[in-house]
Amino acid sequence: MITNIYEEGLGKCEANHSSLTPLGFLSRAADVYPNLLAVIDGDTRKTWSEVSRRCKKMASALKKLHIGKGDTVACLAPNSLLSYEAHFGVPMSGAVLNAINTRLDAPTIAFILEHGEAQVLLVDAELSSLAVEALSLVDREILIVEVDAPEVESNVTRFSKLSHVNAMNYDAFIESGDEFEPWHWPDDEWDAISLNYTSGTTGNPKGVVYHHRGAYLNAMSNIVGWQMPHHPVYLWTLPMFHCNGWCFPWTLAAIAGTSVCIRQVNSTTIYQSIAEHRVSHFCGAPIIMNMIINADASERQEFDHHVKMMTAAAPPPASVLASMEEEGFDVTHVYGLTETYGPAVICSWNEQWDELKSDEKAAKKSRQGVRYHALERLDVMDPQTMSSVQRTGEQMGESMFGGNIVMKGYLKNPEATREAFAGGWFHSGDLGVMHDDNYMELKDRSKDIIISGGENISSIEVENCLYGHPQIIEAAVVAKPHEKWGETPCAFVAVTSDSGLTEAQVIDYCRGKIAHFKAPRNVIFGELPKTSTGKIQKFKLREKALGV
Amino acid sequence: MITNIYEEGLGKCEANHSSLTPLGFLSRAADVYPNLLAVIDGDTRKTWSEVSRRCKKMASALKKLHIGKGDTVACLAPNSLLSYEAHFGVPMSGAVLNAINTRLDAPTIAFILEHGEAQVLLVDAELSSLAVEALSLVDREILIVEVDAPEVESNVTRFSKLSHVNAMNYDAFIESGDEFEPWHWPDDEWDAISLNYTSGTTGNPKGVVYHHRGAYLNAMSNIVGWQMPHHPVYLWTLPMFHCNGWCFPWTLAAIAGTSVCIRQVNSTTIYQSIAEHRVSHFCGAPIIMNMIINADASERQEFDHHVKMMTAAAPPPASVLASMEEEGFDVTHVYGLTETYGPAVICSWNEQWDELKSDEKAAKKSRQGVRYHALERLDVMDPQTMSSVQRTGEQMGESMFGGNIVMKGYLKNPEATREAFAGGWFHSGDLGVMHDDNYMELKDRSKDIIISGGENISSIEVENCLYGHPQIIEAAVVAKPHEKWGETPCAFVAVTSDSGLTEAQVIDYCRGKIAHFKAPRNVIFGELPKTSTGKIQKFKLREKALGV
Repeated sequence: MITNIYEEGLGKCEANHSSLTPLGFLSRAADVYPNLLAVIDGDTRKTWSEVSRRCKKMASALKKLHIGKGDTVACLAPNSLLSYEAHFGVPMSGAVLNAINTRLDAPTIAFILEHGEAQVLLVDAELSSLAVEALSLVDREILIVEVDAPEVESNVTRFSKLSHVNAMNYDAFIESGDEFEPWHWPDDEWDAISLNYTSGTTGNPKGVVYHHRGAYLNAMSNIVGWQMPHHPVYLWTLPMFHCNGWCFPWTLAAIAGTSVCIRQVNSTTIYQSIAEHRVSHFCGAPIIMNMIINADASERQEFDHHVKMMTAAAPPPASVLASMEEEGFDVTHVYGLTETYGPAVICSWNEQWDELKSDEKAAKKSRQGVRYHALERLDVMDPQTMSSVQRTGEQMGESMFGGNIVMKGYLKNPEATREAFAGGWFHSGDLGVMHDDNYMELKDRSKDIIISGGENISSIEVENCLYGHPQIIEAAVVAKPHEKWGETPCAFVAVTSDSGLTEAQVIDYCRGKIAHFKAPRNVIFGELPKTSTGKIQKFKLREKALGV
Repeated sequence: MITNIYEEGLGKCEANHSSLTPLGFLSRAADVYPNLLAVIDGDTRKTWSEVSRRCKKMASALKKLHIGKGDTVACLAPNSLLSYEAHFGVPMSGAVLNAINTRLDAPTIAFILEHGEAQVLLVDAELSSLAVEALSLVDREILIVEVDAPEVESNVTRFSKLSHVNAMNYDAFIESGDEFEPWHWPDDEWDAISLNYTSGTTGNPKGVVYHHRGAYLNAMSNIVGWQMPHHPVYLWTLPMFHCNGWCFPWTLAAIAGTSVCIRQVNSTTIYQSIAEHRVSHFCGAPIIMNMIINADASERQEFDHHVKMMTAAAPPPASVLASMEEEGFDVTHVYGLTETYGPAVICSWNEQWDELKSDEKAAKKSRQGVRYHALERLDVMDPQTMSSVQRTGEQMGESMFGGNIVMKGYLKNPEATREAFAGGWFHSGDLGVMHDDNYMELKDRSKDIIISGGENISSIEVENCLYGHPQIIEAAVVAKPHEKWGETPCAFVAVTSDSGLTEAQVIDYCRGKIAHFKAPRNVIFGELPKTSTGKIQKFKLREKALGV
């Protein structure tokens, strides 16, 4: 047995090892590009030098309050300078950032503040009525730091009426910090950087914990996977409270890009931002594509450059992708979950597909794809046997993830963590197939599958069919209980204002495209209920379907 | 004291933690882009699918010989398919790759094989005479695996005459492996991946050990820092035995780029490769720029695209940079050492410099710059007090590095390792200043400084002055002992064939540009001696200067 010569006298020391953390990207941006714009938020403009200084002060201010490693600082704010700075300033104190979904109701926010044990809540004045309501349901002592919002009265006095709450103004809070106090580089890259509650359709939300290592790696992976150049102009339509904006606050610091924050996301503000700031990149839910395509003339503005969009959730239908391309947008499809730091799978383009016809191209593009650079393992497996499905695009299994951009686990929930990581893989709960070219395609959420007469019907397949109809803008299909068949597909569709489409016409259309048993039995017209992140709320539709 | 809720039930497990390693990039490239070209080596073409299969077989073949974790496999080959595959196949067995500089003499190679304890030597037939000579000086049992080279006889029989050597053919060796045997994912990302001996101007070379973590991080950092797109066509002028080709074999797998290998690096082969394969990127020593600029008409070929070059070592003189730009090359200047995985500092461009005049631009571009994304700390410090120099561009200090792309240490040399890491920083031995915009500029190697009449003269400054002369192609300045002044600058220059330049003219020219005491006292004309990696061998010039 030969001694391993590579393990003697070659250990870690201060010179050759640092904890991975995306926080160092901010200092780098400030050192190298101090005068470039980091954030545009309404009339506010901040350079990298300013954001860096403010974040160091925020960290110092938190430390003065004895907030540090292992403590939680929550944030309830739209995409804004505050949200951006919180992604650095909070963990630079050693604390963990808990960005809260602003569309939640007060009792759920109260649950999150209690469960996450927040000691400070950073809140935008636009949302402080909601915060007051939530805090009235909370027993913990919490410091409120309120940032002014345009055209909104401060609520500091209202906060102060809550006996367990102290409140102060954000800028005053920042000013209480010392920019020269060294910030907290994590001792261990496994230390938590953020806490993100899943929306959870049943029961209480679960707190997904990210670490510095994963945040660093996925921030880099976004750049490499999406081929991002330095200094992109990035429009925030994706909320920063959604998987920490898919790690893009950190990505943008690494390549010194400019964050364009808008308070209202709609066709007008999107086109205006693109034209005014020459936005080059943005991420968003599929609903954003609808806003872009269906914008009317008064909402549109001319621009003469290409814009790259990254979208997740439902695979974009062929017709939507084609329209987006015509409008000057290059769409990249990604897939991931809160538990995987946002995007962990990407539909990487193969040049050999350039020759395909447009609908074949769209079919390739609407697949979820292959593992992100920072994700070491991706597979579609039988969750019982943990064996891979055949790579023929036919056999359904559960998509599973393994590697460095899988969460630390669920906060204070070892049982759920253990269950999610059973067999050494993170179980997504999503159902899909693996194609022979190693690209994964989702067929459904486990709970979204419709079982009719013993046959599985993929709601996504029926939805894709519906999206092919020129007058259908949005579609969602859910199971409706049926005496004879067990379940039947029930479709909810939003149509163009001038369509006059009938239920029978929609059903006939589908029967012409897919198997009869897969075609919807019922069609309901109207706007679709959505979460704050643009996901269609199928559980609401399922309730509705019962009454049809 | 509040319990830290983020440390309970949130530990590492198989699902959420993998050792970082660049080896996974190869499997990803093979899965996603199986049919794209990975390597072009003369008439040989290999796709990602083929290279991946061959590397898995190589790893399996090594394992069958009980070569694995902690063992050393050396490689003596030009840039070629073998060199590329060795960067994956060897560590995929768990072993450590020791790529040896092919320009070394046999006794030095023998020293390296002994010191590194190589068990296998992969050798290109072109170099097997040298290998035979080296092996005759070695006592260890070594397996030789020889790859055929164009127009060279195999030396397998000659190897077999050495009693301690077994020899076999590379393709036969590969074929002895099983492609379905799982390769060795490192248990720990701190495990060694490669061993690179420094050229060392005095004494025996030191063995610099890299780990998987650093190799992964610098491979990603090359992409992010240089804004590399997917599928670059990369020309190998930089030897892969030099800091593992600055980690580019791994970078290219991450973005599925094509490696173009050439056996002879000269003006003809460079232009030919660029024109024939549409090379988009390459790295190389400054000498490569001279080959490009000074190529004559018969050596040139037309091309109509831009080519990106990354260069290190001496800062490129303004005139060279300007000529390169005219020829269609965008030059990025980086700086690093064997101890820092190659490039660790990059002269990132600031758009605000676009407005500068061409010589001012060149002055910005010839600085070493700022830290690479994967390098956490960079500074210029007084090595005695370990305090930072003033950021005024005036005060000289030693450039120092800290973070994840600093080596594990020197193999079997704890004393040198301790010395190199004194005070928690890697001491480079290079002297420089820090400018007020946080860009570092090297002034000299510690040992290259010339001290004349008590004044420090930067040899780089004198060289830059010489390069400004239109008839001077290359220049190097060293110290020559002098009775009165201690030392004086002695210049060695290569001039254009039609120049007819005299010593007096050169000295006069310098006196017109820089302080009199800095101008060379002696000028010697002729070609400059270089290392295999294109670095001018100043120690040879110092010897020569003694005799002038």
